[in-house]
Amino acid sequence: MIRIGIVGYGNLAKGVECAIRQNPDMKLAAVFTRRDPATVKILTPDVPVCLSSEIHQWKDKIDMMILCGGSATDLPEMTPELARDFNVIDSFDTHANIPVHFANVDKAASENGNIAMISLGWDPGLFSVNRLYASAVLPQGKDYTFWGKGVSQGHSDAIRRIPGVLDARQYTIPVPEAMDQVRSGSNPELTTRQKHTRYCYVVAEEGADKAVIEKTIKEMPNYFADYDTTVEFITADEMKQNHSGLPHGGSVIRSGITGWDGECHQTIEYKLTLESNPQFTASVLVACARAAMKMKNRGNTGCYTIFDIAPADLTSMSREDMLAHML
Amino acid sequence: MIRIGIVGYGNLAKGVECAIRQNPDMKLAAVFTRRDPATVKILTPDVPVCLSSEIHQWKDKIDMMILCGGSATDLPEMTPELARDFNVIDSFDTHANIPVHFANVDKAASENGNIAMISLGWDPGLFSVNRLYASAVLPQGKDYTFWGKGVSQGHSDAIRRIPGVLDARQYTIPVPEAMDQVRSGSNPELTTRQKHTRYCYVVAEEGADKAVIEKTIKEMPNYFADYDTTVEFITADEMKQNHSGLPHGGSVIRSGITGWDGECHQTIEYKLTLESNPQFTASVLVACARAAMKMKNRGNTGCYTIFDIAPADLTSMSREDMLAHML
Repeated sequence: MIRIGIVGYGNLAKGVECAIRQNPDMKLAAVFTRRDPATVKILTPDVPVCLSSEIHQWKDKIDMMILCGGSATDLPEMTPELARDFNVIDSFDTHANIPVHFANVDKAASENGNIAMISLGWDPGLFSVNRLYASAVLPQGKDYTFWGKGVSQGHSDAIRRIPGVLDARQYTIPVPEAMDQVRSGSNPELTTRQKHTRYCYVVAEEGADKAVIEKTIKEMPNYFADYDTTVEFITADEMKQNHSGLPHGGSVIRSGITGWDGECHQTIEYKLTLESNPQFTASVLVACARAAMKMKNRGNTGCYTIFDIAPADLTSMSREDMLAHML
Repeated sequence: MIRIGIVGYGNLAKGVECAIRQNPDMKLAAVFTRRDPATVKILTPDVPVCLSSEIHQWKDKIDMMILCGGSATDLPEMTPELARDFNVIDSFDTHANIPVHFANVDKAASENGNIAMISLGWDPGLFSVNRLYASAVLPQGKDYTFWGKGVSQGHSDAIRRIPGVLDARQYTIPVPEAMDQVRSGSNPELTTRQKHTRYCYVVAEEGADKAVIEKTIKEMPNYFADYDTTVEFITADEMKQNHSGLPHGGSVIRSGITGWDGECHQTIEYKLTLESNPQFTASVLVACARAAMKMKNRGNTGCYTIFDIAPADLTSMSREDMLAHML
């Protein structure tokens, strides 16, 4: 049994808790929170909720800590710090800062004989590994990643910070024509605007100037200015009823050529259709926790990514069953 | 530079030759054939074509032998035999016999300090590895594999053996309604007939009884009897003009649930659309040859499969580039 600790208790952590329940070789040992533990009610019976500040008392009682903090401020501190005392995995997803995060975590884990694995989930994560497989198999080709249709939490938050906005939900939607072009093998050069559109549902305060809110959203640099953006105002009830889930997904497509003169076109597409983004990310984390434990038990320490996991390590299946039924 | 030897020189071997050309860290060292080498003209200039019986003279001149024989009779003998003197990889694809083949190859490779890797390609191969990732991430779910639209060479050969048939090409076609059902998350139980149809183009001898040929095809046990099969008679010219390629592909779909009560549905789909089946299989073999060499250089010997390859080993990219650009 792999004894798992969960750090944090938001949507991702709840997903991890649910995923552990689906894997009979794993056991939730404890949840750690910065809040008053008495106020945090978890789903699993008879599992303690503890203060984050007391986590080091659990050093010999947890095989793997799954860190469910945010990438902006939590994980850059938390993952290297906890990697000194625990085997840890996280879902750090600020792509540009991955090399620095990797180096920090690698140092802490290596010096203390622990294993760490960062940036697990689907992007970074399963999408990354599919980009790698596809580019290795089709070296002459081009990668395209499309996201959605799905809720982008960062973009939703950005809208919520606009004065007069009570609530918002932003859907990222891939442009079907762009995907068709890619699948056709024409290897188009696509601008940001050509690949995705953004659709925003907004609940405004009574009396707020909706025209100003719409203009503010559509002109927001980085987030919306480069996209065709639609803003629709709805009521708080409509928001609750129709947009309370966190669906997401997307496709990684590699379009390449083979043959002596590149005469044959080949396409590899990996597609996720997710009703719950955090639950799926959590399921990836839990499978990778198993792989990390197997790697640790073979003597590996330091920091790794999904690129370093031999797929056989992700499953609890025996080698015999894999060869007979899965290959 | 990885020095590659190719054993055999059919469609798959030609694909390997082309794929080597796309990978600057590889070099074709020699091609081995059972035919008179003088009659075999290869595409790469200045590379020798040698008799298979003289292969053992190349023991120190080849880093990796890519075996391009057939799974029915060639590879079961060839792979274990050559694994005594060389690092070898093959595309053995008789699913039911994989465990026995693995054991034979593992013994030969282990005893002689070589590495071997079997059953590489797309099914077995990339499809298998996607079944593994998807089932590890979504343990509560169901796998579906659809093949096509594409040419099944085994089925085409079976038709060609019918008296009165000059040539034949059989396309396996997935049933779109079945795929839609799977994607919807309803986890249907699908019969063989519900998943795929078979479409056969046949060139008949002049005066042959087409009705008899059609009946013979449609009632052929294992190959066609369990499918809705369509037979269309065409001319040799039409065959040459419209059906000379070997396209194939298909989808692996995992439909699963997450959440405390399985309340969210998640779908993972991996799809290949291939203009040339043998060239794509060859491209997988060549990427795996690189991985096998890296594993061998770290001291691994014996037999492995695609399940044992850490994706990072497939690429010639540096770890820094992978973290910065691929993750």
